[in-house]
Amino acid sequence: MSPKITTELLKQLRQVMKNPKYVQEPIQAYIVPSGDAHQSEYIAPCDCRRAFISGFDGSAGTAIVTEQHAAMWTDGRYFLQAAHQMDNNWTLMKMGLKDTPTQEDWLVSVLPECSKVGVDPFIIPADQWKRMSKVLRSAGHDLVPVKENLIDTIWTDCPQRPCKPLIVLDLSYTGVSWRDKITALRSKMAERKVMWFVVTALDEVAWLFNLRGSDVEYNPVFFAYAVIGMNTIRLFIDGDRMMDPAVREHLQLDSTLEPEFKIQVMPYGSILSELQAVGAGLSPKEKVWLSDKASYALTEAIPKAYRYLTPYTPICIAKAVKNASETEGMRRAHIKDAVALCELFNWLEKEVPKGTVTEIIAADKAEEFRSQQKDFVELSFATISSTGPNGAIIHYKPVPETNRTLSVNEIYLLDSGAQYKDGTTDVTRTMHFGTPSAYEKECFTYVLKGHIAVSAAIFPNGTKGHLLDSFARSALWDCGLDYLHGTGHGVGSFLNVHEGPCGISYKTFADEPLEAGMIVSDEPGYYEDGSFGIRIENVVLVIPAETKYNFKNRGSLTFEPLTLVPIQTKMIDVNLLTQKECNWVNDYHQKCREVVGAELERQGRHEALRWLIRETEPLARVQ
Amino acid sequence: MSPKITTELLKQLRQVMKNPKYVQEPIQAYIVPSGDAHQSEYIAPCDCRRAFISGFDGSAGTAIVTEQHAAMWTDGRYFLQAAHQMDNNWTLMKMGLKDTPTQEDWLVSVLPECSKVGVDPFIIPADQWKRMSKVLRSAGHDLVPVKENLIDTIWTDCPQRPCKPLIVLDLSYTGVSWRDKITALRSKMAERKVMWFVVTALDEVAWLFNLRGSDVEYNPVFFAYAVIGMNTIRLFIDGDRMMDPAVREHLQLDSTLEPEFKIQVMPYGSILSELQAVGAGLSPKEKVWLSDKASYALTEAIPKAYRYLTPYTPICIAKAVKNASETEGMRRAHIKDAVALCELFNWLEKEVPKGTVTEIIAADKAEEFRSQQKDFVELSFATISSTGPNGAIIHYKPVPETNRTLSVNEIYLLDSGAQYKDGTTDVTRTMHFGTPSAYEKECFTYVLKGHIAVSAAIFPNGTKGHLLDSFARSALWDCGLDYLHGTGHGVGSFLNVHEGPCGISYKTFADEPLEAGMIVSDEPGYYEDGSFGIRIENVVLVIPAETKYNFKNRGSLTFEPLTLVPIQTKMIDVNLLTQKECNWVNDYHQKCREVVGAELERQGRHEALRWLIRETEPLARVQ
Repeated sequence: MSPKITTELLKQLRQVMKNPKYVQEPIQAYIVPSGDAHQSEYIAPCDCRRAFISGFDGSAGTAIVTEQHAAMWTDGRYFLQAAHQMDNNWTLMKMGLKDTPTQEDWLVSVLPECSKVGVDPFIIPADQWKRMSKVLRSAGHDLVPVKENLIDTIWTDCPQRPCKPLIVLDLSYTGVSWRDKITALRSKMAERKVMWFVVTALDEVAWLFNLRGSDVEYNPVFFAYAVIGMNTIRLFIDGDRMMDPAVREHLQLDSTLEPEFKIQVMPYGSILSELQAVGAGLSPKEKVWLSDKASYALTEAIPKAYRYLTPYTPICIAKAVKNASETEGMRRAHIKDAVALCELFNWLEKEVPKGTVTEIIAADKAEEFRSQQKDFVELSFATISSTGPNGAIIHYKPVPETNRTLSVNEIYLLDSGAQYKDGTTDVTRTMHFGTPSAYEKECFTYVLKGHIAVSAAIFPNGTKGHLLDSFARSALWDCGLDYLHGTGHGVGSFLNVHEGPCGISYKTFADEPLEAGMIVSDEPGYYEDGSFGIRIENVVLVIPAETKYNFKNRGSLTFEPLTLVPIQTKMIDVNLLTQKECNWVNDYHQKCREVVGAELERQGRHEALRWLIRETEPLARVQ
Repeated sequence: MSPKITTELLKQLRQVMKNPKYVQEPIQAYIVPSGDAHQSEYIAPCDCRRAFISGFDGSAGTAIVTEQHAAMWTDGRYFLQAAHQMDNNWTLMKMGLKDTPTQEDWLVSVLPECSKVGVDPFIIPADQWKRMSKVLRSAGHDLVPVKENLIDTIWTDCPQRPCKPLIVLDLSYTGVSWRDKITALRSKMAERKVMWFVVTALDEVAWLFNLRGSDVEYNPVFFAYAVIGMNTIRLFIDGDRMMDPAVREHLQLDSTLEPEFKIQVMPYGSILSELQAVGAGLSPKEKVWLSDKASYALTEAIPKAYRYLTPYTPICIAKAVKNASETEGMRRAHIKDAVALCELFNWLEKEVPKGTVTEIIAADKAEEFRSQQKDFVELSFATISSTGPNGAIIHYKPVPETNRTLSVNEIYLLDSGAQYKDGTTDVTRTMHFGTPSAYEKECFTYVLKGHIAVSAAIFPNGTKGHLLDSFARSALWDCGLDYLHGTGHGVGSFLNVHEGPCGISYKTFADEPLEAGMIVSDEPGYYEDGSFGIRIENVVLVIPAETKYNFKNRGSLTFEPLTLVPIQTKMIDVNLLTQKECNWVNDYHQKCREVVGAELERQGRHEALRWLIRETEPLARVQ
């Protein structure tokens, strides 16, 4: 990796920072955040502006360019990568270290008096604007919105914003029509006494209209906004995607509909002016509902007194609770995914000893097997295929420079998943193709105990996911071990592999309580820098639990694993398991054998079936 | 309980709300919060203003009186009590119910336009003022400080503010001199670049100067403030308490000291004017450190730009980590406390079958036994002595109207504690003096499993207490049971029985990480309305744990029980315990027998010793 030479680019950027064509008054600093206008986790190439200006292309980072300086804030995952990718025009600001200033404090320390700090108001979330603007103002500076994105003005070969065809999801996949979703949304709006709801997150637009796209890699979403009134529906979307007869039919664009379900299609770029018009036309007590993470630009379009902001939108909360059709789809997707992984692991077992399989080859092979399955669309995230010391890098992605050959002497960790039309998968298995050491088995078994503790947990309705996080760590803690990431995240239904509002983490973010029908991952791990990484991840469905008693009639919940891929018994030190844990593993493997075995049989994959049967032999505890 | 007749009082209050002698302009509403000027949990009789005006004397509640209305907000614990104690001038606002408006929203709904809402600025914490004032202002009203407390103006027989003699704690109890505590505080102040620190919480003043008082029942504190500068110490305290030679000697008031340790003693009532003088004399960058829960009056004395507010003060954090002398004192106090409880339970075992022991008699007897112990000062809270259905009332305190006779047919729950000069205790035991039912034993055993799960937990340094809360519930959850309170609170060292900044609760308040030397309670329970209550509470010390490995060199922690009172084995269903849990109980009882047994022997309490030996017989699991 050689750094990107940015001297010329920075010079150009500093020129446009003073160019009256773009800024009313010259600005003394320009902030380039990571995100897009929808606060997406994964972004399209045209939105990778921070990577363009700096060379640093990790998933998290904020660049700030002043007349004299260029600085990049990123977190511990990316210190090395950022240092390699940026030239010496840039100062790396290591977030999380004690002496690293915040962006605001740094700005205050370097700016001349009464400076203007610019940012694209579409990219910065409203809550972040507020925080930053307050600090700058108290130091005599101003945070100002710069309408035209200044990076775009100098990015001559900027890729086009993607505008790929849409996929219509019929009722057999979604379970609920978009009309019923709109009706449910309107009743939530009525409850909160709001007249308008602005849909800004891409997965929320996709979910609401039962449409999918492929504008962003791994996430089946498309660039669009929607504004839902009590009697109107406006969809802001570009291109000829609305000319597709299937889409027109699905959205009933050419039918004579009740007016409240008539969708007005408008250009993507007109959202701001339309929202400003909505804002200007409000009568007292008419509120507009927005996510508090919506962009500053859209939030400002609504006068403050009329805004109703919440951390989670009603769509986010409704989307998280999967209905029967979605749940069945997720089950099907996970069975197909398990078929692909049985094939892969059977293949790896034969090929790894030959010394010809690299991390990249293994990842490609996993994709190949998945792509053979019905309704496969794409991967759900970049495959983490890592062996030996690479396994300890939690967000590793194999690239030619780091690509390592799998061997019978090292642990192999594969964290991968796919988008199928009926569901999204995300599974991690840690395997050894030779003989694991006693220590490796010990660590693996603690991780497994944590995985089981969460998966088998019974807890009352209304419990937030973060209250389960310690269950995943207890066995590791007992021996002085731990892992430095959360235990689980929400998973979309043929949507984003990471979604809110629920999760399982020691970080007490404002998660919503777990409910039957929610789907999360359960993925404790253990990582030893420079030697190996272990993670065991299933996607699990929240289901009602039968309990002996029922305190205050609250009802209880537990999890059902949707992922049905054997957990390598070779890696388990059976004597560290309790009888209950041992039974859990055996029951789980029995289910894998029955359900995935039947599908392997049906698909005529006999060799993989033999592998599955061997890998699901019951454990026996030596008493 | 007959309600207090408040018609005349409310009439008088409404008159002073318009009286220019007390208010610049008439106010349309007056808020009467629960607290005192130090935001204490327990308050002195002269501060029980809300109880005086309304009749409702529960520990939590806020009264608001307008020209037309009088309303009382309180939580679920007190709905019944408040309804009984208040006459029909009052509307009860049941907090936690969906349809109950917040105080602000209610005010907005009932007030005429442009109203003034008054409150005593010394009683309302700054953060609460801010929240309330914002809502009122956005509805066109004003929250205004009323300097003279309006309740005090009509409370003709208001008790005097207590001003009891002080107790000097020498180094053998405190481990650190007040001079060293001031030095440590100043170094924290230097770290944060603040020039002044304002001590507002009563237990913080007491701790800092190694003094105790008895101005508030159960809490060995005294009314005072302190303002610590880098070179000055000001103590605001009333009465002739500073004439006591022991106090003068202790504080070196008559010695020629380095000027930075010279204590200036000032009248309690002069804190505001002195602080205003400090505020007026600040030069740029000179900050003043206050708790964000300090009163609005004191917070406002410092211009906004000069305030440095934190949720926990450096004193609160230092106080929580007990030093070797304090820990040893706490151990001694808990041994004495165990002696008293062995005597009590031995006595109850003999007396209960006679049918003559009521809840009040049992509570008094517990106090009698405790008072026989060395350095006993007073109880640390009102004893919860409850049998049968009364046990299910979590904050029960026996009064003649509810007083129940202990019997061999009901579970008895005793939650009690004391202040000794060397430490503070808080212990709950649940006993049966006849034959418990299988169901009672089952529930007790789940609670015990939860108690052990916390007490035996091993967790990394830096872990916050709330991450341990679910361990206490897991066994109950498995059977569909739970309890509706937190699992533990910090405990002071001959100070408040409830103290911050640590705790163990499902509520994710901003608790600070647990550290070796902190002391918390471990008290899961189970309550069945109308039939019984179970709670098992030990006070435990956070200690370093030895572990097999040491991830990232972080080190691990666990708990050591300080409470050494047998857990009634008759209540345990041994077959529900794992071998590990069984061993924990046996090890715990072995320690009770050795440590408390030796003390009973030394005190010649042979009958209680025989009881202890019988009650600490090892459990044996039937395999």
